[in-house]
Amino acid sequence: MKTYLDCIPCFFRQALAAARMSSEDETIHRRVLNSIALMIPDLALSATPPEIARQVYRVVYEITGNSDPYYETKNSANQAALSLYSRMQDTVDYSNDPLLTACRLSIAGNDIDLGAQAEFGSINSIIEDSLVFDLDQKNYTKFKENVAKANLILYIGDNAGETVFDRILIEQILQIKNLKIVFVVREKPIINDATFEDAIRVGLDKVATIISSGSDAPATILSQCSSEMLSLYQSADVIISKGQGNYESLSGRSENIFFLFKVKCSVIARDSNLAIDSPVLTHS
Amino acid sequence: MKTYLDCIPCFFRQALAAARMSSEDETIHRRVLNSIALMIPDLALSATPPEIARQVYRVVYEITGNSDPYYETKNSANQAALSLYSRMQDTVDYSNDPLLTACRLSIAGNDIDLGAQAEFGSINSIIEDSLVFDLDQKNYTKFKENVAKANLILYIGDNAGETVFDRILIEQILQIKNLKIVFVVREKPIINDATFEDAIRVGLDKVATIISSGSDAPATILSQCSSEMLSLYQSADVIISKGQGNYESLSGRSENIFFLFKVKCSVIARDSNLAIDSPVLTHS
Repeated sequence: MKTYLDCIPCFFRQALAAARMSSEDETIHRRVLNSIALMIPDLALSATPPEIARQVYRVVYEITGNSDPYYETKNSANQAALSLYSRMQDTVDYSNDPLLTACRLSIAGNDIDLGAQAEFGSINSIIEDSLVFDLDQKNYTKFKENVAKANLILYIGDNAGETVFDRILIEQILQIKNLKIVFVVREKPIINDATFEDAIRVGLDKVATIISSGSDAPATILSQCSSEMLSLYQSADVIISKGQGNYESLSGRSENIFFLFKVKCSVIARDSNLAIDSPVLTHS
Repeated sequence: MKTYLDCIPCFFRQALAAARMSSEDETIHRRVLNSIALMIPDLALSATPPEIARQVYRVVYEITGNSDPYYETKNSANQAALSLYSRMQDTVDYSNDPLLTACRLSIAGNDIDLGAQAEFGSINSIIEDSLVFDLDQKNYTKFKENVAKANLILYIGDNAGETVFDRILIEQILQIKNLKIVFVVREKPIINDATFEDAIRVGLDKVATIISSGSDAPATILSQCSSEMLSLYQSADVIISKGQGNYESLSGRSENIFFLFKVKCSVIARDSNLAIDSPVLTHS
């Protein structure tokens, strides 16, 4: 997906939010915005939004000297989501269609995003919201069928904390079939995206093999990924792509990808023909 | 009120919206954003937001070659509001406190704003919403007392269409006391702010003397106003200031100003300690 001009105000908003997370010094915040402004005339809008976002955040991290401003936020999200892990398990176990409920929870968990939006609600309300999600029935059936016959699933994660919701879905998939699942995290901290450390903290290593994408983009930019990641990407029977960033970088690809995310901005709303806040389970 | 760094993403959003109103050519939209980007490093944040917005819109108008992109939008808003004029009159006449109802309507009419927000609801829903407004009782009592003893009121308008709501309030004030009311419009088209033509179209000349501020800012920047405007500003017993732009440029002044507006962005929400969408009747 290309970058729209509407993304430009959003890059400034995100840069300011990240700068404020890093420093209380307004002159530093201003320097950050000035530097982003100077990048604008040279931006190639043919790049995907997360490719540009990656450059934007790198500028923020360089100027503020803080390469992981969301470190505490990610830890809190991991802890908050973990504290509700058994409740989520119960919700899934006692539902009519556990896999569907686990999908809904995984999509709801994508609300824990501090890139496309400035804040998110309580983990508790995120779980509650998931119970009333209407997902596309045809896509869900296709997802169920594909999962049932897969031997290798590449599960590309998005945010820290959301990983607990992902663990719930992965456990549910493993109840259907004992297959190999590889969970992909970002190579380095970027926004509040999950890194290796975040995945370990929520015990994803107990249910999946965790690998880094090899890239520090808040997305899956294949040209920046490691050969290990690319090889798994090519050989996986099913790819589960979580979140807007991965959608923005992988939509339009021909692999067998299921995109699970929540719509968080007007650009994706227009692109997906859905309202902001809609839960999405769609197929490439 | 000074400009906050949060205003910077908003300037880009507004510039893009205005560029799209003027032209369908994406390369022109891009040129607009590039030009705004080049302005950022030199922006003096000590200026008020509408002072900077004025510069931003002037760049948009220069690049697109359209000096009044909201012309049709303003006409539609004038027409739509005018078609509900007698309904608004009835609403006021049959209410327990007609002046309060007219204040509520006038504040609700401030929703017809395309600067701080991308769109507004139907004029019908704007009227409905006003009926449940909770206004600060102390400020309203002060407003009522001040109006009752005034001989000259300077009423500084904001948007086209909103002017019909202003006419309703002015008529109500004139029922309390037959005093002189001067209604101030912008010197030239800027966003969807009311100009002389817009005021005439909704018959404001039947109830007030209409003058231009002498400035094309979407606000009241005294250093840019005409001597006629400044003289009335100094001699008025009461000043009624409509909308965020006038508030941003006049808040903190010592004159007897009543600010009537709706909170439309996080910066004003923080400044006024009110939630976005709140109706405001406050005193300088």
